Amino acid sequence: MELRSLIRDIHNFPKEGVVFKDITMLLQNPDALKKTTVALLNLLEGKDIDKVVGMESRGFIFGPLLADKLNAGFVPIRKPGKLPSETISETYELEYGTDTLEIHLDAIQKGDRVLIHDDVLATGGTAMAACKLVEKLGGVIVQCNFLIELNFLNGKEKINEYSVQSLITY
Amino acid sequence: MELRSLIRDIHNFPKEGVVFKDITMLLQNPDALKKTTVALLNLLEGKDIDKVVGMESRGFIFGPLLADKLNAGFVPIRKPGKLPSETISETYELEYGTDTLEIHLDAIQKGDRVLIHDDVLATGGTAMAACKLVEKLGGVIVQCNFLIELNFLNGKEKINEYSVQSLITY
Repeated sequence: MELRSLIRDIHNFPKEGVVFKDITMLLQNPDALKKTTVALLNLLEGKDIDKVVGMESRGFIFGPLLADKLNAGFVPIRKPGKLPSETISETYELEYGTDTLEIHLDAIQKGDRVLIHDDVLATGGTAMAACKLVEKLGGVIVQCNFLIELNFLNGKEKINEYSVQSLITY
Repeated sequence: MELRSLIRDIHNFPKEGVVFKDITMLLQNPDALKKTTVALLNLLEGKDIDKVVGMESRGFIFGPLLADKLNAGFVPIRKPGKLPSETISETYELEYGTDTLEIHLDAIQKGDRVLIHDDVLATGGTAMAACKLVEKLGGVIVQCNFLIELNFLNGKEKINEYSVQSLITY
């Protein structure tokens, strides 16, 4: 089974002129769900991980699956006001305006080896903010891994101080 | 390890007078993540499942883990405008106002045996809407399962036409 064949293009979503990569057909296929998890793990080449950090909302889907297989914990990074305990935040630039992400202060211990996971690497703004949040708490970024990389948006350049791996590149 | 000891009370979140059950300490503990997954599976008592349906955002955390172990697919139910392909929606009452959930039209095949999963059963409004969406598409609800049930909110009553199981009750 070719995983790429289960990712469909949705034209003009979320706005005119954008082609959205929809992973829901892949998620609803049991074999593809397993195969994707294994393939994402293989990108790590056996490196030890203490915490998998996933970004709201679609980073929550494979993040915990990876954490489970790696015997690691899962840490959510969320939009402002969603995490209930004490947080630190990071604001980053969008095409128009800014966005902010938060992480719990006690989510990462000093020296934790961290895998950052999200479904899509686009401009890299979200991933960069996530890396900064983890580093502020003393974590070490072992890899940023993505199911999909939209390489025409140059996100990899933005986070090129880290090891970046993607399963499927467009 | 007592899972309950890893769920902490956050007072006055998300608003004054509410005690929020925070599961992030549980998620970041590798053994607790595994133990919770196994315990949620045990609630099913070996019943066959074709699709696990999880509600945005925290239903995305254990939903895919359960799907993986059950050799099932994972289907996200999301807030309006988030799912990119054709959807059906269901609107339900909140304490003040209403809320709406959506599911992809092609997410469930007629006769699919479905496990509905969310982290918390509160008033049952979200779970009821999820069940209706799945049934509209021809799915059969095998069980609604939750990590936490706030039983003083009587959510179980609201969805008592379905089999409802929760791991930890307050």
